[in-house]
Amino acid sequence: MKVYFAPGSRAVRTVWLLEEIGKTYDLVRFTLGQKEMRGPEYTRINPNGRVPTLVDGDTTITESTAIAQYLGARYAPELIPGPDAANFATYLQWLHYAEGMIMPPINNYVVETILLPPERRNDEIAARSLKLLNRTLGAAEAHMQGREFLAGDFTIADTVTGHAVIVSRRLGADFSQCPNLAAYADRLEARDAFKAADSA
Amino acid sequence: MKVYFAPGSRAVRTVWLLEEIGKTYDLVRFTLGQKEMRGPEYTRINPNGRVPTLVDGDTTITESTAIAQYLGARYAPELIPGPDAANFATYLQWLHYAEGMIMPPINNYVVETILLPPERRNDEIAARSLKLLNRTLGAAEAHMQGREFLAGDFTIADTVTGHAVIVSRRLGADFSQCPNLAAYADRLEARDAFKAADSA
Repeated sequence: MKVYFAPGSRAVRTVWLLEEIGKTYDLVRFTLGQKEMRGPEYTRINPNGRVPTLVDGDTTITESTAIAQYLGARYAPELIPGPDAANFATYLQWLHYAEGMIMPPINNYVVETILLPPERRNDEIAARSLKLLNRTLGAAEAHMQGREFLAGDFTIADTVTGHAVIVSRRLGADFSQCPNLAAYADRLEARDAFKAADSA
Repeated sequence: MKVYFAPGSRAVRTVWLLEEIGKTYDLVRFTLGQKEMRGPEYTRINPNGRVPTLVDGDTTITESTAIAQYLGARYAPELIPGPDAANFATYLQWLHYAEGMIMPPINNYVVETILLPPERRNDEIAARSLKLLNRTLGAAEAHMQGREFLAGDFTIADTVTGHAVIVSRRLGADFSQCPNLAAYADRLEARDAFKAADSA
C-alpha cells in the first residue's frame, strides 16, 4: 500500500489507522502547500492536489474518512460496528462529525491565521471560526461524558474525529470547559499507532 | 420515523433517500435560521441546532451522510455497494466528496452572500469560495465522464454528493465547462423522489 502524505494533514488519520491495523505501507511525502501537490504528476492521481490518497493494488481512493471506511471494511472489520450493533448509529454520527462539523471552522481558522500572508488575513473571520469551533466541540464534550471512545470500543471514528479533536486542541481551541474531551485527546495521543503517524 | 427538516438544507438529502426507499416519515419543519432551531427544545435533540436529525424508534442520529449510511445499511442495502463490490472504493470516495470538498466552499459562499447582513459581507471571500467551489466541481466533472451515477447504479452517494452538485448549480457555480455534471444534475432533479424532497 502507498499513502500520499503530508505531516499535520488529514493523511495522519490514514497512517494512524494503518498502524492500528498493523499493515505495512510506503509513504510518498509532501509538505503542506508544497508546489508539487498541485503539479501535473500528483494531480493525475488526485485532481484536487490534496492528501491523503491511498493506493492499494489497483484501487486508488481519496477523502480521509472514505479511506478509513475502506480500510476498516477490507482489513479490520473489528474496528467498524455493523448495522446490527447497538452503537451503529452513534458510530456513524461521530465518524461524520469531523468533516461535517469540526473541520469547516478549522479550515477557515487555518486559512486566516496560517495560510494567508499576514496582510491578507481577516481577524474577524478567524475569531468567528474559533468561536464556532469551540461550539462544535461542546457537543463532543457532552457526548464523551462517561465514554472512553466515541462509540464503544476504539473504532475508525476515533482516527477521524479523534484526530480532528487533537488538531483543534493544538490550534488553540478552548479546552478549559472540556475535561472529557481533553482526557479523550490525551488517551488518543498516548497510543503507539498515533505517535507513529504523528511523527511520520 | 421522524425527520427534523428545513427546505433548502441538507435535510433534503434525508427525505430524498426515504422517498427512494419508499419509507413513510413525519416531518418536523423549520426554516433555516429560525430561532427555534437554537432553542432549548431542539438543542436537546441536536445540540448544534442543525438539520437533519432522524429519529427511528429508539435511535436518534444527526449528520446527513451518517443518516444516509444508516438508512442504507438498515433498509436499503441495494443502495450501498459492499466491501467486495468492484466500485466499493469509488462509492466511498464520492459519498464523502460532498462534505470533504464541495460543502466547505458552499458554506462560506452562503455566509458571505446570503446569511450575513449586506454591510458585513466580504466580497473577496465570496469570490474565493466560488472559485474553490468551481475547482472542486471540476474533479467531479471529470469523474462523471461516461457515468450515469457516481458509482455504478444509483447509490446513497447520489443523494449526498448529487445533492451538493444540485445546490452548487442553484447557487450559481459555473457549469459552462461541466456538461457531464449538468446532465447528472438534470438526471437527479428529474427523479420523483428528489422532486418530493425538493418541494417538501
